[in-house]
Amino acid sequence: MSGAPWYLDCDTGIDDALTLGLLVAERADLKGIGSVSGNLAAADGARNTLDLMALMGRPDVPVAVGAHDPIGGVFGGAADFVHGANGIGGVVLPRAGDPVAESAAMMLIRLAHEYPSALRVLAVGPLTNLALALELDPQLPSLVADVVIMGGAAMVPGNVNAVAEANIWNDPVAANRVFAASWPITMVGLDVTMEARFEETHRVELASGGASAQALAAMLGVYFDYYTPIFGRPSCALHDPLAAAIALGTVVPTLAPIVPIEVDDTDGPGRGQTLVDLRSRFIGYPPQPGTRHRVPLQIPEGFGDALLEVLLRLP
Amino acid sequence: MSGAPWYLDCDTGIDDALTLGLLVAERADLKGIGSVSGNLAAADGARNTLDLMALMGRPDVPVAVGAHDPIGGVFGGAADFVHGANGIGGVVLPRAGDPVAESAAMMLIRLAHEYPSALRVLAVGPLTNLALALELDPQLPSLVADVVIMGGAAMVPGNVNAVAEANIWNDPVAANRVFAASWPITMVGLDVTMEARFEETHRVELASGGASAQALAAMLGVYFDYYTPIFGRPSCALHDPLAAAIALGTVVPTLAPIVPIEVDDTDGPGRGQTLVDLRSRFIGYPPQPGTRHRVPLQIPEGFGDALLEVLLRLP
Repeated sequence: MSGAPWYLDCDTGIDDALTLGLLVAERADLKGIGSVSGNLAAADGARNTLDLMALMGRPDVPVAVGAHDPIGGVFGGAADFVHGANGIGGVVLPRAGDPVAESAAMMLIRLAHEYPSALRVLAVGPLTNLALALELDPQLPSLVADVVIMGGAAMVPGNVNAVAEANIWNDPVAANRVFAASWPITMVGLDVTMEARFEETHRVELASGGASAQALAAMLGVYFDYYTPIFGRPSCALHDPLAAAIALGTVVPTLAPIVPIEVDDTDGPGRGQTLVDLRSRFIGYPPQPGTRHRVPLQIPEGFGDALLEVLLRLP
Repeated sequence: MSGAPWYLDCDTGIDDALTLGLLVAERADLKGIGSVSGNLAAADGARNTLDLMALMGRPDVPVAVGAHDPIGGVFGGAADFVHGANGIGGVVLPRAGDPVAESAAMMLIRLAHEYPSALRVLAVGPLTNLALALELDPQLPSLVADVVIMGGAAMVPGNVNAVAEANIWNDPVAANRVFAASWPITMVGLDVTMEARFEETHRVELASGGASAQALAAMLGVYFDYYTPIFGRPSCALHDPLAAAIALGTVVPTLAPIVPIEVDDTDGPGRGQTLVDLRSRFIGYPPQPGTRHRVPLQIPEGFGDALLEVLLRLP
């Protein structure tokens, strides 16, 4: 699918698991995967990632354990009310392989030097590893082709509080540094990810697929339990997979302005908010020099159908 | 029109001038008007208010000078690039009357006690006077029927920076206190006021009216100069008049959820933002106890036409 070399940073997590499935099924050239604390602790996320990648036939992709704690803080604990006790809905997978010795931040730096100007970064958890890598190697932004993240919210409410989305909320200091760095970021936030959904029919059909699809379908029970009262029907949001699909180009947003973004890392009521400057909606707003981040605000319908079709290709 | 007694707090300003016109033409029972620094200094705003009210045939309404400086800060100067050198587009009016001796905050408190549970408050400038009145008389929220403000932004960008609207930006500390008090507030923000506009045809037709309408039309030249590049056509936003019309009930928003609102008064990047919790857009969001503020998000079309018709009734 995409010929580019990829570094994936994730906190695996049920929608992260779907994302691994999407990337494997789309034959993305994954050079390495780092884990970070978010949906669950970084070490546990790496475990889930290794087991899932083996199940999906890609035990060859190196997995690195990343930061356990956010910058200047302490990990607040797993979101088991969303993702289940082990982060993947209680589904027990065959145990496979071990993480590599290098840290996720070091893996990212190494890959950026190995594939200069070509490496693409997809980060679907808190941005701690990316911020650590920026600190260790300030040249990083010039070596990376682009960064796509799942996180933030531009015109819609947060999912932690009125304004903060969970990935940004979990490490606002890191997020602020990552957005301030000179690389171009596509911020796939709640504006579009809450509109990308699996319905009950998708879940049932996924369970009729191969072993990987069956495992993913089994995880979705817990995830549906969380989202069903929110949406008022059996369904779930497809946060991380949508970010991956936009990164791969298989979903093309129908509205995605290039705008300035700043992250609130104060201790005030706006902590963890992505402040997205959408004043360019008005004609006369002067272009801001250095503006480089893209925020999808609308996507075509049908992502759930497309994701299902792709996941059914998995072994 | 509306039988309720009104206290108006304003920073007169071109769209404040239109608001005075609207309230007079609609025969609102104005018991008093306070001025506050915002579009221009409080004393100058009181001058404009007195002169306009006299021109419009209501020299009887007492006008009080309010706070010159925001709470804990210093007034940043007039927005003459929006409202012209004297705040009303350079239009010179016959000088009329003098302000009363009491402060705007004391006037508000007095009127609230004179008309308990009946007084309605319309505040279309920074919220300094309201915050000072709350400090002087903590019973105020139980004495006032409701508060309608022009200010803030829920789902749309600010007009000072990415997130802050000017009235809130000019005194975020006051705004935070006013939203935290127990009275119900209707926050008429940029979500709707940027959609309420006068076009060139309105301005031309207004100039064919009585002396008051002619004066208002003359002011609009400067205001149009500011908004024309923003909207890409000769026009202006009707911020304050829309708040007045919603307060009077002559405009009924088509979407106006009751939601929690907090104001960012930190020194961070979100300073001056109204954090409007719109999570109730999702079915499963639990009701928050004490939620009492209403935020219009959509209004019917045609406010410019309606306002023109009303203003043409003025002497």
